[in-house]
Amino acid sequence: MSIRIGIMGYGNIGRAVECAIRQNPDMELVAVFTRRPPKSVSILTEGVCVRHADDVLQMKEEIDVLVLCGGSATDLPAQTPELAKHFNVVDSFDTHARISEHFANVDAAAREGGTLAVISCGWDPGMFSINRLYARAILPEGKDYTFWGKGISQGHSDAIRRIKGVKNAKQYTIPLESALNAVRNADTTAFTPRQMHLRECFVVAEEGADTQRIEQEIKSMPNYFADYDTVVHFISEEELLRDHSGIPHGGFVIRSGKTGWENENTHVIEYNIKLDSNPEFTASVIIACARAAYRMKAEGLTGCKTILDLPPAYLSPLSGEELRNTLL
Amino acid sequence: MSIRIGIMGYGNIGRAVECAIRQNPDMELVAVFTRRPPKSVSILTEGVCVRHADDVLQMKEEIDVLVLCGGSATDLPAQTPELAKHFNVVDSFDTHARISEHFANVDAAAREGGTLAVISCGWDPGMFSINRLYARAILPEGKDYTFWGKGISQGHSDAIRRIKGVKNAKQYTIPLESALNAVRNADTTAFTPRQMHLRECFVVAEEGADTQRIEQEIKSMPNYFADYDTVVHFISEEELLRDHSGIPHGGFVIRSGKTGWENENTHVIEYNIKLDSNPEFTASVIIACARAAYRMKAEGLTGCKTILDLPPAYLSPLSGEELRNTLL
Repeated sequence: MSIRIGIMGYGNIGRAVECAIRQNPDMELVAVFTRRPPKSVSILTEGVCVRHADDVLQMKEEIDVLVLCGGSATDLPAQTPELAKHFNVVDSFDTHARISEHFANVDAAAREGGTLAVISCGWDPGMFSINRLYARAILPEGKDYTFWGKGISQGHSDAIRRIKGVKNAKQYTIPLESALNAVRNADTTAFTPRQMHLRECFVVAEEGADTQRIEQEIKSMPNYFADYDTVVHFISEEELLRDHSGIPHGGFVIRSGKTGWENENTHVIEYNIKLDSNPEFTASVIIACARAAYRMKAEGLTGCKTILDLPPAYLSPLSGEELRNTLL
Repeated sequence: MSIRIGIMGYGNIGRAVECAIRQNPDMELVAVFTRRPPKSVSILTEGVCVRHADDVLQMKEEIDVLVLCGGSATDLPAQTPELAKHFNVVDSFDTHARISEHFANVDAAAREGGTLAVISCGWDPGMFSINRLYARAILPEGKDYTFWGKGISQGHSDAIRRIKGVKNAKQYTIPLESALNAVRNADTTAFTPRQMHLRECFVVAEEGADTQRIEQEIKSMPNYFADYDTVVHFISEEELLRDHSGIPHGGFVIRSGKTGWENENTHVIEYNIKLDSNPEFTASVIIACARAAYRMKAEGLTGCKTILDLPPAYLSPLSGEELRNTLL
């Protein structure tokens, strides 16, 4: 019997979750829920219903795990605790500074409902967190660095779009080879933001806008750009659509550490990913975590977990014996 | 209260486990057990006793986790099941083809004894296995490759030493950049062994030995060398000791896969390690797994586990809350 999945929210992540389910024969999509009029939403999977978000409780008995695909700013902080009272849920809440608060809210709701929730699944938080954890546990005397990119930063692109005279914009975060290579050689310097990442912006200006002023406003924007070397290109809307419509991303977690009685030996652990589609990779992690949520619930566990609490074996469709025979 | 560790076997791994314990303030070494006369064995940690392996049961009450540091060929297949009847144990059994059999034996013993055992901790099997698992779970439609090195292969070095006229030898396994880069670019070719790894041998010949014959015997040795490009250098014993006494190793696990409704997007996940000391890195993984074993036992779990069954959080000395606040 397959794991019956519901999708709440049909944006980039929701659609990517739908695609990921099709790659996992032990799973089945049973419904997509949306706040839009259901008839206005057309999904990819044949024979699966689209229903209004308000009707989700009516399908409680038909859904094993509900995947929450809303945004971290306002959707998930309310949605995940509310729905965890009724469903096993998985979300990709990614506001690092508020994870503890979100965890506490979801944990209380899931315990009340006797459900199992997994929050903050994706790659950062997510696979990058797991890799920071393993590397620190293995090499306690060392230092790790996380680099992001090359990829589109939604937050930085939005920040540029808010500038007067900007019609559209995309911002790429680019890790600097010089810092990457230093860290790979066990350098444990305290790099500045400027030494680790470059910011490259592709901006479509409104007709007649003062591009020099726009460039200056971007480069001096506190938090977002002022601490980085920032390159600004003005391009046409056509060029933006043609060359910068993808949502690639990626990054690196690298830790070096010392071992030996006199700390005489050095080791370097690196994890890196290169993604054509940020939402599709995130969705693929979410779906593996949904499998783990289903199994943990089947074992009688309830409450909130993060990806750090999930035994790796639970993310795989293979049995323990198959895993020991084929990949251990 | 710290986790009280015993070490069974004081070779390369045993000594490295001793060093690793010192880096983990929540752990304490309480005894080293050896089959040699205990007085002949001098360890690094002050105030810790060395006792004969036969006396290990006498310290049953003083040890939380016994770390088994024997070899996989003959020591561990007997030792781990025997000692799992009395102690929580961790080993680094690394004969891939016999893991299932070893697991079954250890599981039966641990259930009988009401203990918790973790087998096959290290990097392959170990961290590489975990990374194969995560990458396959996230990208089910794809292909992965494991490369080893650059590093000393003990088995291949031993094979050379068995050749007549060879006094000493070290063999380095070297991954080929051409295959590495192809795989990093999502190439899913079925590479031959020769396309993936080079074997470089440093050989000390006995005086008057026929080096041409030795080189020919190495290069034509089935399984070990015949399927690879092999380079043989004859050097002096002095040079071997001076330049090739370390035990470096490392390697790469790389998986590429497709996502999207039409499989239109490609992703690449890479994990790699570069180690000055193979046994010290292995020991560092073992010790993190010993922490997990201790915790799982404290929760009432018994039986045999592998590193694939351990929730990542259990390997860290930090609490769940600390992990969510600092690295999730």
